Amino acid sequence: VITAVALAGLPEVRPGDDLAALIAAAAPDGFAPGDVLCVAHKVVSKAEGRVVELASVTPGPRALELAERWGKDARKLQVVLDEAAEVLRADGGRLICRTRHGFVCANAGVDASNAGDDRLVLLPLDPDASARALRARLGVAVVITDSFGRPWRIGQAEIAIGCAGLAPLDDWRGRADSHGRELHATLVAIADQAASAADLVRGKDSAEPAVIVRGLAPFVLGEDGPGAAALVRERGQDLFT
Amino acid sequence: VITAVALAGLPEVRPGDDLAALIAAAAPDGFAPGDVLCVAHKVVSKAEGRVVELASVTPGPRALELAERWGKDARKLQVVLDEAAEVLRADGGRLICRTRHGFVCANAGVDASNAGDDRLVLLPLDPDASARALRARLGVAVVITDSFGRPWRIGQAEIAIGCAGLAPLDDWRGRADSHGRELHATLVAIADQAASAADLVRGKDSAEPAVIVRGLAPFVLGEDGPGAAALVRERGQDLFT
Repeated sequence: VITAVALAGLPEVRPGDDLAALIAAAAPDGFAPGDVLCVAHKVVSKAEGRVVELASVTPGPRALELAERWGKDARKLQVVLDEAAEVLRADGGRLICRTRHGFVCANAGVDASNAGDDRLVLLPLDPDASARALRARLGVAVVITDSFGRPWRIGQAEIAIGCAGLAPLDDWRGRADSHGRELHATLVAIADQAASAADLVRGKDSAEPAVIVRGLAPFVLGEDGPGAAALVRERGQDLFT
Repeated sequence: VITAVALAGLPEVRPGDDLAALIAAAAPDGFAPGDVLCVAHKVVSKAEGRVVELASVTPGPRALELAERWGKDARKLQVVLDEAAEVLRADGGRLICRTRHGFVCANAGVDASNAGDDRLVLLPLDPDASARALRARLGVAVVITDSFGRPWRIGQAEIAIGCAGLAPLDDWRGRADSHGRELHATLVAIADQAASAADLVRGKDSAEPAVIVRGLAPFVLGEDGPGAAALVRERGQDLFT
């Protein structure tokens, strides 16, 4: 049995806030062995100060050109360009980027902070390190998540961008014959699926960024493990594109 | 709270078997309002006779050429080519295909039936219709799932290839301002995330193809709804590729 339970909402998180303490306060019963804490990245980014004031941004020529073409705010586009290691596609008002972490997503993971706000929230610099830091403080496996669009499919699904204390992958390659049964998959993205399960229970307005997923004890590690970096396919190794 | 519980394993499913009856027998307590039954497609495909005996396949020139190049069984490649509406990439022993349903996946969704078996299992011809048929018989929302690889990421995640009685998408576009809170996503792939949640609890050797996901009542419909077809992005409309 797998269970996902949202923690009570956190207060608005600000740069410098002690996120681990805020989460601990929202989980008065603490965590059980085998629990996995899934945290929407935005509160992590905010606590880590990964926030940009639009007023502080001076757009360069490419941002100005795209802004002109798309009728968008050039400063926002500049922030996206700054976060992108590579722009894979610039079309229809959207920049599909590869981030420095190797994630491929819309707008390099840059989000609006609040409706009508003048701040943008970036991805954590090193989400696996963010997960390790939360795990060290809270004593629970941690997945840091974000909503990504997917090629060929409509709608976003939550995936793991950071991970500590949870095996990100369950590798069944070569184990089929030992059971004599068919495998329905051979390399299962456990951390991504945990992120998606957590998202189903989360308030859609991000008032509940922290969710406990129970029942994944077989994948919980006694150490930080390889992190969500293990879920990133190396450039040039992609089967699909 | 979201809960995923695997039903007891089904017996080996054969073409012509009454899958709804097998599932009902594995769920002696029946289903509650708001339950979502997630079923790995392979048992659906088998019950529907979507099974090919390799001995019956005569490979054509393209399958023979790829088989020669990759050292693979030309008959298996022929079955994949037959299932593909379009081959997007043929590389490294794998065919990335668009199926007639519009799904983009490895080998057009064709699976080995069992280790060492001489049969291949295809995707259902119309997985939404398969889901509707199960819903009509069992009186519960149904998602039919498969494990798909993803561009740029390692590992497979379970997604919805068929759906009835569950809203496949939760659309929050335009609703941000009414709450005054930031949205973490605007168009959430509920059915795909339910498929992933179900997969976390499923035996990895496909002995437990049927999983009940509880807690999704807000997305359960009084009718079949648009199905997983609503999750397929139209060709030429893709933001990523």
